[in-house]
Formats: sequence, structure tokens, C-alpha cells
Amino acid sequence: MTLENVLSRIDNKMPAATDRLLDLLRIPSISTDPAFKADCDRAADWLVADLQSIGISAEKRATPGHPMVVGHVEGDGPHVLFYGHYDVQPVDPLELWNSDPFDPALEDTANGKVIRGRGSSDDKGQLMTFVEACRAWKAEHGTLPCKITFFFEGEEESGSPSLVPFMKENADELKSDIALICDTGLFQSKTPAIITSLRGLLGEELIIHAANKDLHSGMFGGVAMNPIRVLTKIIAGLHDENGRVTVPGFYDGVPELPAELAAQWDALKFDHKTFLGDVNLSEPAGEKGYTPLEMNWSQPTCEVNGITGGYTGEGFKTVLPAEASAKISFRLVGEQDPHKIRESFRAYVESCLPADCTVEYKGHGASKGSVMATDHPAFEQARAALSDEWPEAAAFAGCGGSIPIAGHFKNILGTDAMLIGFAKDDDQIHSPNEKYDLESFHKGIRSWARILDAMTKA
Amino acid sequence: MTLENVLSRIDNKMPAATDRLLDLLRIPSISTDPAFKADCDRAADWLVADLQSIGISAEKRATPGHPMVVGHVEGDGPHVLFYGHYDVQPVDPLELWNSDPFDPALEDTANGKVIRGRGSSDDKGQLMTFVEACRAWKAEHGTLPCKITFFFEGEEESGSPSLVPFMKENADELKSDIALICDTGLFQSKTPAIITSLRGLLGEELIIHAANKDLHSGMFGGVAMNPIRVLTKIIAGLHDENGRVTVPGFYDGVPELPAELAAQWDALKFDHKTFLGDVNLSEPAGEKGYTPLEMNWSQPTCEVNGITGGYTGEGFKTVLPAEASAKISFRLVGEQDPHKIRESFRAYVESCLPADCTVEYKGHGASKGSVMATDHPAFEQARAALSDEWPEAAAFAGCGGSIPIAGHFKNILGTDAMLIGFAKDDDQIHSPNEKYDLESFHKGIRSWARILDAMTKA
Repeated sequence: MTLENVLSRIDNKMPAATDRLLDLLRIPSISTDPAFKADCDRAADWLVADLQSIGISAEKRATPGHPMVVGHVEGDGPHVLFYGHYDVQPVDPLELWNSDPFDPALEDTANGKVIRGRGSSDDKGQLMTFVEACRAWKAEHGTLPCKITFFFEGEEESGSPSLVPFMKENADELKSDIALICDTGLFQSKTPAIITSLRGLLGEELIIHAANKDLHSGMFGGVAMNPIRVLTKIIAGLHDENGRVTVPGFYDGVPELPAELAAQWDALKFDHKTFLGDVNLSEPAGEKGYTPLEMNWSQPTCEVNGITGGYTGEGFKTVLPAEASAKISFRLVGEQDPHKIRESFRAYVESCLPADCTVEYKGHGASKGSVMATDHPAFEQARAALSDEWPEAAAFAGCGGSIPIAGHFKNILGTDAMLIGFAKDDDQIHSPNEKYDLESFHKGIRSWARILDAMTKA
Repeated sequence: MTLENVLSRIDNKMPAATDRLLDLLRIPSISTDPAFKADCDRAADWLVADLQSIGISAEKRATPGHPMVVGHVEGDGPHVLFYGHYDVQPVDPLELWNSDPFDPALEDTANGKVIRGRGSSDDKGQLMTFVEACRAWKAEHGTLPCKITFFFEGEEESGSPSLVPFMKENADELKSDIALICDTGLFQSKTPAIITSLRGLLGEELIIHAANKDLHSGMFGGVAMNPIRVLTKIIAGLHDENGRVTVPGFYDGVPELPAELAAQWDALKFDHKTFLGDVNLSEPAGEKGYTPLEMNWSQPTCEVNGITGGYTGEGFKTVLPAEASAKISFRLVGEQDPHKIRESFRAYVESCLPADCTVEYKGHGASKGSVMATDHPAFEQARAALSDEWPEAAAFAGCGGSIPIAGHFKNILGTDAMLIGFAKDDDQIHSPNEKYDLESFHKGIRSWARILDAMTKA
């Protein structure tokens, strides 16, 4: 059996595959911080060279931001596009890392070996599962099983500003029968998942300005407006006492959860006590009346991701700051319109501004939620293939995260997307000490070999 | 006339006096930041040497924190103690300074010459007005006009933790007939002020903890508690819609403003439009129903001096932080009890905590407001002397700031305090580009010579 040969080769070549991933993880490709621009470029070069080493015709393609990497290989059967991103999140607070985030290493833990380092799980490790599956396939067969396009982005963690223009300009080149996206997780540690819906994401940064400079709270306190007070009032008003978002019109387009889907989710017996308990929480904190899976998969959210104003160093400083700012994100579902919500949010903010305060905005991305085409034959083929590889059968699952590219494939290219990934809940993506289980990496590579086989043997 | 000789000498020796002040300003004696401990020590040494150069027996006295400087000179007549502080505020945001805060210089401005640099007004420049007056007096007379104790502190900007123990341990040495404190401002640029009341200060830092690490807002958003949301709700609840502080019992001990004092304040014709207009504000932001002077002089406040949580760098990061924190200060008046208010505030905070959140506190000082003994003869002597020096007659004025040492002199030593200072509203103390008008420095020195003369010629 040729699939068995590919799987054996994957098993035998794991040390080399792991070394290649560690090499990629050493590049600090933080896309949101301009200081790391050259590193993002270097990560793109690394991927081009790696694809070329498998015989894939690949190149770095310039954008106004960080470059794309695009590679093609011809073949029979379906045309598959594989998407991943090579950029990573910032690493602060750096002092909470137990080791250098960009000096990755294989580490023994109570739950087995892990690859520790920024980007190990999100998304370099996941991206490389597919590349390594292709490498093993090519080595055994001399060719790849079908026509494959590789499409790697370097701006996913900073709102993908160049993605849509690039897809539009290169639509003919990027169209395919199915887009495979590897940037999601297992449902539970032994249960793989195929994602059926994603939340959209709207990012808003607002800066409240009051006096034209920082003031002394003795001399001005009581008379002068404090912008922190204004900002906290705005934020505190964003949720009602049940945890429901108060922005007018926010819930327009949020669908009722279909009974069939609700039943499927119930059947997953999601263990929210363990999910929350792993991070030292116990109570689901979303809107009352929803299950934890609904809070994360089918309900929208409004979260403050950062806030700052005044003196935040050691000790105390009796200052009335000139400004205070916050970064706020909304996760969106169904037909919620990010542009309308941005307008409504800003109108709400302005309705809260007292005399002498002004507001400045920075928009950070605006994408709708997506629902996947689970009737595409690839979904059942992948479900069977994943179920063969993992101890538990694969689940069709929602996802609380936002991977707007799935919507872009559908809207711009007319291509359905299928999201499969091998991250675990405790991977600490976006947090200090990010890791990727060696098991995720290994079984992830094997899973893609099985999926390619299932999709092409028909 | 010997006073005239002293005043002439002050005028003639201004360049040397200014150079000495610039020298002191070059020492970055930021007391709240442990990184500047050696610099605080160096500022104390500088002052000891400078007092000794006038023939004053002075020494640096160790405390568990930054040292005190104490100097004595014997003489007839009243025993006067002079207090000032040699420590300064932090300088952030450093990027808003037009020059190095610790490379001070004399600068020409549209309003005349100013001494620019951190501490120029608060409080090194003010402290040196008295020292320079004594230097000129000594040079003309060979002695000082009375028994004087010099008492300089290095922890005023960080809550004065060593002050009370030091005063208690050295009470006999520090007792005097009147304590002169130079850490306040003119009422208006041509009108000197003698302070009749000060607000107390209670500082509280609170850190809200939720999950045991930063979380991804896609994976956890909607299910996990966000501590920024909790913190902003707590802060937003601290004021009602009229700007009144909601902490239970907060207004216990706030006196009604006596009609006589209200009439005096009205007579000052405080120009709040200019006061606020100078910092680009227009509307008094305090509790409705009070005049701007009442908001600052006789009403208590609750202000957030700093807030931080989550990602605050460039760009965007969809993180749910593990913690969020704020520094909150209360300015207190009359008989408000800082310890009871701290308790009540903390009970309020805890009543706002949802499941899975805990709070950690750091207390930063707790002092009551003070009312001065304006029937002490020194007050009328100083009022006459100041009125001789300045274009407008001196005013008895309240003060929105907190100089707890006035209360300590009274409570620990039984000594009444008189606060006179020459800072201007636009000195930007605690802010970037702090300055002290050369006129404040010059007329300040002359004012102390006149006051010493008025207090001792009787």
C-alpha cells in the first residue's frame, strides 16, 4: 500500500522534519511590529527555499506589506490550494517566558514531547505539517498526488491588509477546487475537528483626548476632565448585566442556532470545566442563557484586548493624563456586518463623550463570520481520513477564532475552504511559552497524507 | 535700610543663584523609581554642601528610604523651620519633552525667561528661594535674622514613607514656632497666596487577576472572564451621573463651606476659563453644583492616575489578558478619614468582583486634609510682606494639592505650618517640559527676605 509507505517515511523522518521546523521558528517574524520587517522577509525566503527543495516551483511575491509565498505543482485530479501563515504574534510579556521565544527547542513534559517557541503552534508548526506530508509523498511517489498550490501569508496576525488585494490581482492563479487551511485546533486532544463555522473580527482602537498635556491631579483634580474616566465609562457600557453587548444593532444578522447543530454540539459533550480549569477559571463568562460552546462558536463578543493611560510604572504618580486608549475587538457571526457595527460603535462612543473630550480611531480589520460548505465531498473524505489516524472519530465543530481567509476564498475566488488543524487548547498561542505537541506535528503530517490520499484515490 | 541691602544683593547675585539651581536640577532625583536611588543621595549631599557654604551646620540623615537633610543655625527671635523636598516626579512620557529633563537651561519665552527642567518648580526651585534669601541675608548681616532649622525631604513625590517616623524620632530637634513650607503656587501670576487649607491624599493600586495566563480571544473569547472588563466596570461605578463619588461613606466628614470663606473666594474672581483654557479645556468637570474653586479647594475627588492591561504596543493583538491594573487616588478634605475610605473602597471593589476574579492591592499613602492656623501672627506678617513685593495684594487661598507634612507638623510637633510658594499654573509640574519662571525664582527669594524681616523686626 502506497499510503502506508508514505506514513512510514513520515515516521522515520520525524527528526529531520522537526529540525526544519525549529529552523523556521528561529526567525522572529512578528508582523504587527515594524521592527521585525526584515525577519518576516527572511521567513518568506526560508519557505520559498524549502518548497523548492521538494521540487515545487515557488517564489516570494511582493505586497505593500509583508510578502506572500506562492508555489505550484502540476498534477491530475482535484486542484487543491493549501494556506498557512508564517508570521507570528508579539511575545510580550517577555518576562513570563521560561525561555527565549525565538530559540525553540524540543522539551519533555508530563504530557509528552513539545516543540516550545513563538509560532510553534500558530502557525508555523501547522503550516509545516502539510509541507512535510508533501515532502514524504514526493519522496515515495516521485510526484504529488494532485495539482497543488501553496499559498503562505505573512500578515495574518496583523489583520492581513495585503491579502484581499493580492487575491483579487491573482484570482486566476489562486482559484482551486478546494482550499485547505491549517490554522485551527483539535476538538479535544484525541479528537480531530473539521471547522464548520468561523467568527469574523472587527478591531477598533480608540484614543480619548482631553487636556493638551498631562496635568497635576492636585492642581487640576476635580476641575479638569480625566480621559481614563471617560474611557472606562465607555467600556463599562459595552455590556449589560447579562453580558449582552449593548452597541445598537449589534445583534442584527446573528442567526438562531439550528436545532440539528445544537444537537450535534451537545453530543460532543464539551468539558468546559476542564477547558476553563486548565487556565484557572471555572465559570463561563459569556451572555447568560447560552452554553459554553455557543458562547465561543455561535455568539458574537466584544472584548477589550488592551487599555492604557496615565502612569503605569512602579510606584505612584498623581497625574491626570492628557489621553487614554483601548484596543477593542468584536468577534462576529452569521450575517453581522462589521462595517455597520463599526459605525454604530463609533456613534455610541461619541454619544458618551463629555465636553472637552475628543476621540481618535484606528481601525484594525473588519471581517464577517463564515459558514463552511460541508456538503463539498472533501469534507466527508477528510472526516474519514482523520478518523483513521486519531483515536476518536473526527468532529464537525464551530470555531471561536477568526480566519477571514476562508470567507475571502469563497467571496473572491469562489473556492470553498476546509479548515483542519492539530493545535491543542493548552498550546498557549498568543501567550507566553507557546508550544506545539510533537504528537500534533507528527499526527498532523500523517493526517494530511491520509487526506490527500482520500481526496485523490476516488 | 538693611532689608533694602539684602534685596539689592539678591538682585545683583541672581546669575550665581540661577547657576546653583541649574546644578541641583541636573541631579535626576526621582524618588519613586529605585533606579535613581544613588541620584537622590547625591541631591542630599549637594544640599548639605550648599547649606554648609552659608555657614549652616547641616548633615544628611539616613532613613530606610532616601535621606533627610537637616541644618540648624542659632539666633534670637522666633524659631523658624523651613521645609522643602529635593526629590522629583518621573519624567515619562519622555518623548513629549522638548529637551532633556535633567539638562536644565534658562530659556526665553513669550512670557519672559524660564528655568526649564524636571524639578525646576516642584520643588527644587522653590526650595532654593529660601536658601538664597538666607545666603543674601547672611552676606549682608553676617548672621541670619533668627534661629532657623532647614529640613529637606527626598520622598515627597513617593508618599513620604520615612517622614513621620523621622519626625517622631527627632521631635525635639524639629519643634519650632512656625514651619514654613515652599511647595505651592501663586494664586494668579501677579497675586501671591498663603495657603489656608490642603487636601489629603489616599493612593490605591489594584490589580484584577482572572485566568492564570494571557488567553487567545478567539479560543476563549465569550467564555473566559476578561479582567479589563471587570476593572473598567469598577472604575466606571466610582462616580454617579453628577460626578459625585459613590464609595459608601466617602463624604463623611466633608464640611459645608463657611459662608465667610465662600465670600472671600468669590472676591478672588478666579478666572477658570483661562485656567482651563491654558490646557485646552473649557468646562469644569467636577460635581455639579460647585464652583471651580470649590471643586479644587473644598471638594474631595476620586481620580484614576493610571490604567493598564493587555496589549498596548503598536498594532493589534487579540489577547484576553490575565490581569489588569489601575492606580487610583482620592483627594480628601475636612475630617474625611483615609483609612475608613480605603476600607470602604476595597469593600466596593470586592462587591464588583465576578466569579474567577481576585484582586490584589497596593496602598500608596493615606493622609487627611488640613486647615491652617491663620490666627498665628506670622500669617498677617507674611501677607503684608508679600503684598509689598508683588503687584497685587496676597490672598488667603485653598489648595487642591496634598502636602501632608503640614498636618504632620501640627500633629507630631505641635507646630503650625504656613505654606507660601511662587509656582505658576503653567509650570507643568508632574508633566513634560516643567519650568519655573525666573520671575518666580527672583521674587520668591526677595519674598522670603521680606517675610523673614517682617517676622523678626517685631
